[in-house]
Amino acid sequence: MQIRKAEATDVPAIVEIIVPIIREGTTYALDPEMSEADALTYWTGPDKETFVAEEDGVILGTYYMRPNQAGGGRYVCNCGYMTRASANGRGVARSMCEHSLAYARSHGYRAMQFNFVISTNERAVRLWQSLGFEIVGRLPDAFRHPAHGHVDALVMYRLL
Amino acid sequence: MQIRKAEATDVPAIVEIIVPIIREGTTYALDPEMSEADALTYWTGPDKETFVAEEDGVILGTYYMRPNQAGGGRYVCNCGYMTRASANGRGVARSMCEHSLAYARSHGYRAMQFNFVISTNERAVRLWQSLGFEIVGRLPDAFRHPAHGHVDALVMYRLL
Repeated sequence: MQIRKAEATDVPAIVEIIVPIIREGTTYALDPEMSEADALTYWTGPDKETFVAEEDGVILGTYYMRPNQAGGGRYVCNCGYMTRASANGRGVARSMCEHSLAYARSHGYRAMQFNFVISTNERAVRLWQSLGFEIVGRLPDAFRHPAHGHVDALVMYRLL
Repeated sequence: MQIRKAEATDVPAIVEIIVPIIREGTTYALDPEMSEADALTYWTGPDKETFVAEEDGVILGTYYMRPNQAGGGRYVCNCGYMTRASANGRGVARSMCEHSLAYARSHGYRAMQFNFVISTNERAVRLWQSLGFEIVGRLPDAFRHPAHGHVDALVMYRLL
């Protein structure tokens, strides 16, 4: 699997990956009804660096990185990762996160923060913990899950 | 003191209040060099509702409110408060926060979250605690303070 910066030709694959996950509305705090154009802008906008994970010419996943805050807060980055549904369970998210940690380190970031990990997304929580992230905050009832009602969201963080 | 929605005629006063605080770079994770136009957009942009605190025709402070996340996260609001330097110590921030809590409650929010309270801003931390906010997260070394180097930032939260 090769992980590299996204190019314009990757846009259709990125849309294929991110739109169904946004529509599902269970793992990201994004409007499930947002347009494809808005979804793409969210994922690849000028405030972000966007990457793709490619294998045998197929894009299996994508992630973005951005400074989580400006000014004195710009040394902490934030990332979002999405895997193509058909590639779940193959370690794509883990590979992308490992790539992002190395990339962030080499680009001057001192820490990485996930602002809003939905507590019911247990697989993600375990994955991030296995990659060195700690739950540094818990936001009671901060996310209205379409199936479970209001559930906690977690702030996860690791120094680089 | 009257607290009301900001109007176009309040723009000069808002700029007078927020720009010096942004330039100082010690309490908000914003680029201290940002232009006045960008500062104003940050504070009054279309994603926000902006308020001012007025006494005897003078704007003493201003705050904004916005949903902290989209989608299932839109029931938690985020606010920022700034007081005119010459009015510090007169309870302007407390009054604005009390106003915002009532406003948020009456507009369907279930909680209020401050994402990035800089730990050296002890007066603010104590004020928010006295208004019912809890420190629900600590972000180690997440803010580079111009005088103190890297210091922790706090996530503060209260249900409404």
